[in-house]
Amino acid sequence: MIERIRLESLRDKVTTAENAAQIIKNGMVVGTSGFTKAGDSKAVLPALAEKGKTEDLKITLMTGASLGHGTDGKLAEAGVLAKRMPFQVDPILRKKINEGEILFIDQHLSESAEILHGKTKLDVAIIEAAYIDRDGSIVPTTSVGNSVTFAAMAKKVIIEINTQVPEEVYGIHDIYQAEDYPHRNVIPIVAPWNKIGRKTIPVDPDKIEAIVFTNVKDSPADIAEPDHKTTAIAKHILRFFENEVKEGRLTDRLLPLQAGIGKVANAVLTGFKHSNFYDLTMFSEVLQDSTFDLIDAGVLSFASASSVTVSKECYERVFGNLSKYRDKFVLRPQNISNTPGLIRRLGIIAINTAIEFDIYGNVNSTHLVGTKIMNGIGGSGDFARNAYLSIFVTQAASKENKVSHVLPMVSHTDHTEHDVDILVTDVGLADLRGLAPRERAQTIIDNCVHPDYKEELQSYFDRACRRGGHTPHLLEEAFSWHMRFSETGTMKKDK
Amino acid sequence: MIERIRLESLRDKVTTAENAAQIIKNGMVVGTSGFTKAGDSKAVLPALAEKGKTEDLKITLMTGASLGHGTDGKLAEAGVLAKRMPFQVDPILRKKINEGEILFIDQHLSESAEILHGKTKLDVAIIEAAYIDRDGSIVPTTSVGNSVTFAAMAKKVIIEINTQVPEEVYGIHDIYQAEDYPHRNVIPIVAPWNKIGRKTIPVDPDKIEAIVFTNVKDSPADIAEPDHKTTAIAKHILRFFENEVKEGRLTDRLLPLQAGIGKVANAVLTGFKHSNFYDLTMFSEVLQDSTFDLIDAGVLSFASASSVTVSKECYERVFGNLSKYRDKFVLRPQNISNTPGLIRRLGIIAINTAIEFDIYGNVNSTHLVGTKIMNGIGGSGDFARNAYLSIFVTQAASKENKVSHVLPMVSHTDHTEHDVDILVTDVGLADLRGLAPRERAQTIIDNCVHPDYKEELQSYFDRACRRGGHTPHLLEEAFSWHMRFSETGTMKKDK
Repeated sequence: MIERIRLESLRDKVTTAENAAQIIKNGMVVGTSGFTKAGDSKAVLPALAEKGKTEDLKITLMTGASLGHGTDGKLAEAGVLAKRMPFQVDPILRKKINEGEILFIDQHLSESAEILHGKTKLDVAIIEAAYIDRDGSIVPTTSVGNSVTFAAMAKKVIIEINTQVPEEVYGIHDIYQAEDYPHRNVIPIVAPWNKIGRKTIPVDPDKIEAIVFTNVKDSPADIAEPDHKTTAIAKHILRFFENEVKEGRLTDRLLPLQAGIGKVANAVLTGFKHSNFYDLTMFSEVLQDSTFDLIDAGVLSFASASSVTVSKECYERVFGNLSKYRDKFVLRPQNISNTPGLIRRLGIIAINTAIEFDIYGNVNSTHLVGTKIMNGIGGSGDFARNAYLSIFVTQAASKENKVSHVLPMVSHTDHTEHDVDILVTDVGLADLRGLAPRERAQTIIDNCVHPDYKEELQSYFDRACRRGGHTPHLLEEAFSWHMRFSETGTMKKDK
Repeated sequence: MIERIRLESLRDKVTTAENAAQIIKNGMVVGTSGFTKAGDSKAVLPALAEKGKTEDLKITLMTGASLGHGTDGKLAEAGVLAKRMPFQVDPILRKKINEGEILFIDQHLSESAEILHGKTKLDVAIIEAAYIDRDGSIVPTTSVGNSVTFAAMAKKVIIEINTQVPEEVYGIHDIYQAEDYPHRNVIPIVAPWNKIGRKTIPVDPDKIEAIVFTNVKDSPADIAEPDHKTTAIAKHILRFFENEVKEGRLTDRLLPLQAGIGKVANAVLTGFKHSNFYDLTMFSEVLQDSTFDLIDAGVLSFASASSVTVSKECYERVFGNLSKYRDKFVLRPQNISNTPGLIRRLGIIAINTAIEFDIYGNVNSTHLVGTKIMNGIGGSGDFARNAYLSIFVTQAASKENKVSHVLPMVSHTDHTEHDVDILVTDVGLADLRGLAPRERAQTIIDNCVHPDYKEELQSYFDRACRRGGHTPHLLEEAFSWHMRFSETGTMKKDK
């Protein structure tokens, strides 16, 4: 175990999680590893939650993205979080955010580290490592996230060495950081498989104040079996891709794929298994089970992301056979995996999930009824804005069809119509490329709306058009479906 | 005159604008030079408008950005435009767009050329040139816009040689185009003054079907003298920059500036004349009078953009003394001047104008009362999303204070709160960096709102907070100020 600290002078820094947590004081800004549950702090943050139960302790917590093991919930419940950024998926934390008890900054994941170059200063970084190399640099585990920036900017660093992670992960990371302004240079990636950086995260050994050993795996990803809706959405998308190939706009290799987390992404990727597409690549933020299934099926050649978030079975498959997979994927800092310039340069096909979209193609990815946040924008904005093709998916209706996910106007805008090329529901696909707002509206109504809502949506649009405008709306009715749902529990009108 | 066609074999292509306009047939897609009134078609498009008066002629017209000389209005009036993209500023065209008579696609200027790699195919390009070089390539004039893509993608090319433009403009353009997917490479610009391309626009001489001579200058920019509101806004911004320097986050050189068109940009740039800032640079889309004033004052070292749109006086000053200015500025294609990767890499400080913004910092740049478009998003999204600092400005109130430009909720979202760092009105400046939505709201109410509206906006926010949510809103009241204005002509409540 102690051999995982290869810089021997650091071995006397080994301590307990409880002791390490003492480094963190009231009012501090703390940055920790962890991106979509992968590679998060498994000992010190939980110890901090315990500590917070009995003392006055409020911190600002930054991560890569979401944490696993219910840690965000424990911290929220203990009252330790004053402010949290840039992403979360925890129901307890979410509740406290929506109650206004915890402040949350919902940020583009490519930009979240930039805040540390501004007014916010990082006090402590907590970073999960497979081991510490001889030069004191860190070999990260199942994600990279913001750890490179955190290690560079924090005054003090705590390292959690997770002995569950094989030391053979050395080499699966590509650690590169852009220079500070005004001397920032080109990021020389022109294909998903390019590796341009170091293998370890540099850190000044003098800043390492504590090292804690852990032996806990990442929270496994929830298994999301395709259902009839996600299967329908996936079919629409695959048929669309096939047609793009037929029209000569794409080849059977497509372009590098990005897929958000969840059922639909899994269903689409699974669909590729039984298709003519080959030699596919991914340039995404998270790699899920479906990525490794496609690698195994010989359909996907290479995948780039910031984390591996997979089921228990898939975790064993990948990290138990790293020699088989190590030349097939790479993990990068999130300000590289999600950076606008690379997404534009590589021509990404981005598939992300919407909560709702409106007749003009504006997308809400984050808020329920305009006010309550679900998770956060994550990387969807980084990808949607800069992708070659920006695809958003959602079910047409849910809750026994009491909720329509296609609406007159979104109650919160995360992605404007300028950034949305293709919308897909289980009902169908709307190709909005080259269409003006009034054309977009009719295409969406014709192709994506659940039949129960089609007539009323058409009526809204027709009446709005009669009133005029480039983007016709009836402001007094724009949110009437949301308000009806709040009042009556259904978006449906009384007949 | 004929010497401006240096490839002699092309000299028999010279014809009249009327003849050249005959090349354009009903249903065609036409792409023309012209970016913020600079370097537009001055003969063939007006001839097309004439032709449209007597025959069945409907085209899709793409440009760089807006056209001068009322050409868009003439085309709209003649019924020639079926669809127009990606930007316009013409009152007649605007009216017809808002009446639903002409379809308009409002696009990020960096992305507008990409549409031609998709489903839309370009039939004819019309490009203004200073001259045609010996290899048949084009020396553009006062803008580059989308001309490089148009020349490459169009089946037929019409060139307008403008003898008002001195041939010495050769060399002020940096003509570079990214490769097609999946072979797109790095754009190797790391500073505004880097030149990475050719000096002329390549075009296959066999595609050149007509050459027309013109002798008309660009429409001059409207002179926008600073008033007390724009002066106040400029002061707030300059004071902010001074403080950033004091805090060590910026130096006296700042970072490359982008400024949208208009009074405020002019007022801010003029403010730099009497400041401690030096060796400034611009990486923008349009260069206005203030740019050249700052160059003359020795404060600005270099400016990069896609066009020069200046007053009559400034036009003479610059294009009559090119030897003085030629190493001080460069004109690029708009998919280089506005490309996300460069904006992020260079760390741009972006200053753009809003029509309205809301308490959470969402910005509407394009629509009146949620439905009627003014001009279009232009490059503001390209810059705001990727900038180091994204600043939006507007007056706090207008029309004898009957309209508040700070509102409970914007009626149309062009820039989401994720992309807005600083908001400024004549009342004050709100620094939103590192703030959660509820903090943003209070900061905006405290600093930016006109006194006549402060109490009501505070009341809205307070009541929304009591209802809860990460982004508290009262959906039933969110647009009440807009609706009150539509009904009564003022946003003020009866007292």
